[in-house]
Amino acid sequence: MTVLLRGGVDVGGTKIQAVITTRRGRVVGGARRVTPREGGPAAVADDIALAVTEAATSAGVRVRELRSVGVGAPGHVDGAAGVVFKAANIVGWSEPFALGPTLEQRLGRPVAIGNDVSVAVEAERRFGAGRGVRSFLGVFWGTGVGGGLVLDGRHVVGRGSAGEIGHMCVKPGGRRCACGLRGCAEAYAGRAALEQRARREARKRKTVLFEIARKRERDSLTSGIWIRALEQGDQVARDLLDEAVDALGVAIGSSVTLLDVERVVIGGGIGERLGPKWLTRIERAAAPHTFFSPPPVYVLAELGDLGGAIGASLLTR
Amino acid sequence: MTVLLRGGVDVGGTKIQAVITTRRGRVVGGARRVTPREGGPAAVADDIALAVTEAATSAGVRVRELRSVGVGAPGHVDGAAGVVFKAANIVGWSEPFALGPTLEQRLGRPVAIGNDVSVAVEAERRFGAGRGVRSFLGVFWGTGVGGGLVLDGRHVVGRGSAGEIGHMCVKPGGRRCACGLRGCAEAYAGRAALEQRARREARKRKTVLFEIARKRERDSLTSGIWIRALEQGDQVARDLLDEAVDALGVAIGSSVTLLDVERVVIGGGIGERLGPKWLTRIERAAAPHTFFSPPPVYVLAELGDLGGAIGASLLTR
Repeated sequence: MTVLLRGGVDVGGTKIQAVITTRRGRVVGGARRVTPREGGPAAVADDIALAVTEAATSAGVRVRELRSVGVGAPGHVDGAAGVVFKAANIVGWSEPFALGPTLEQRLGRPVAIGNDVSVAVEAERRFGAGRGVRSFLGVFWGTGVGGGLVLDGRHVVGRGSAGEIGHMCVKPGGRRCACGLRGCAEAYAGRAALEQRARREARKRKTVLFEIARKRERDSLTSGIWIRALEQGDQVARDLLDEAVDALGVAIGSSVTLLDVERVVIGGGIGERLGPKWLTRIERAAAPHTFFSPPPVYVLAELGDLGGAIGASLLTR
Repeated sequence: MTVLLRGGVDVGGTKIQAVITTRRGRVVGGARRVTPREGGPAAVADDIALAVTEAATSAGVRVRELRSVGVGAPGHVDGAAGVVFKAANIVGWSEPFALGPTLEQRLGRPVAIGNDVSVAVEAERRFGAGRGVRSFLGVFWGTGVGGGLVLDGRHVVGRGSAGEIGHMCVKPGGRRCACGLRGCAEAYAGRAALEQRARREARKRKTVLFEIARKRERDSLTSGIWIRALEQGDQVARDLLDEAVDALGVAIGSSVTLLDVERVVIGGGIGERLGPKWLTRIERAAAPHTFFSPPPVYVLAELGDLGGAIGASLLTR
């Protein structure tokens, strides 16, 4: 009996995660590489191809035995053409690049391209926390704050990019977001914004955040660093994360009021690392902005770090 | 050739509007009655039956020739059971009432019950401003602020009541809304909230709003009164409507950011009366909160006052 295997790759600003999955979403192989910071999209494409090859090897198959390969990329994507227009957080990727065709030539397999958050939502819908649910809001809390919508049994995309919960306004006239708008949830809750804010606070108040980063030889504040600082009772970390949770609460509560979903699924680098206690805090922060009673059920994403790659493996051209 | 006709009724706090429609949504008859303010839901059901009968007569048919009758009611509705739980704005309707079965007995035709905003969105999708569009956000700006979502070609409802854009938070910790939450768009933009606020302002500042209402022998501030006051340069009317538009801008902009719709369709009592100039103002107020570029196209609802009744006629059991 031949098992139908697919490759899936999640491309992020920090790492490239490849997996090999079965029809039912079981992971039978994987490989991870650091995202190259030089060479632009062509270098990233090279490393994606390498990661897929390594993942296939770890699953005991060859790339040519894979049915297809899917790639979830950050930013705006034209799935039909396989083009990634501008990959947020990937150094040097500011112009459209035909990632799909490039990889097809390299790998000799059909390659489909999708948005990273969108594929992660699809993975949760099929195999994770959204299984058996007609409607849910997926929120991915990491460097940015992304989201996805499953409504009335289907993953909906609007004109193509629905789910930008991180750029909903939580404070009119509030803090400037990297996207150019003001008062976005991401400007308060995204890891990039949190770090920027922490650097400013560090000039005025004592914080262990950057000390931990130095000890861990990190040049940015990872989720783990924030958690360690909280454990040490760091007030700056606590204040900023409180503010982040409040902002997420407004955006999520308003989204639930608009969408009337059954579930809210929280994932992403920070979301998953913070765990159930913070899930409850987010739920409490959303309650004052939630019109419906009973409110939806809040759950953590189930597929963790591999969700994006698993979701990417579901993509078909 | 027999023409297939259906009855549709829009039940509001002020009036009961019945229409007779063809398969293609053309209105071939209609009747309007004032919503009874005494006698509760049973009295309202009586008047709905009368309105349907009058509408049928005006179309030259008998009620028993209608294929079916649909009723759009405000508030929470159980379509399958034909029950309206609590009809917002209808005096004395605070308990669940089996409107569907009651009307079926009275009219001798199958009767379907739906939510008033939801049927109005469906009418716009099929025959109005949402025709030929894969995704739009419907916003009904009247006594309250309701909404509906058409995404990826389908009218989506979540757990059943999606679209409550009026209760999205536009100002955390802001004005108390009639729903109990704080900072809802409706607390700034709904006609009921606007009137309450105008009464308070009238103690401090000069306004012609209540003078016009007295002359017109109205005990509440209708859309027409607001428009007249604006024409007379009334500063209170201007300030409050500016604030209303700003609040709608935050809610609509954030909704567009979440949904990535092609169009925003503005209707409802105030929305329609204010016309294209205000449509542009709403669009401008939403722009600073809209993540996507180009933004969606803003249009007025096309079916006007009859949209709810036409939409109700589409309901089937």
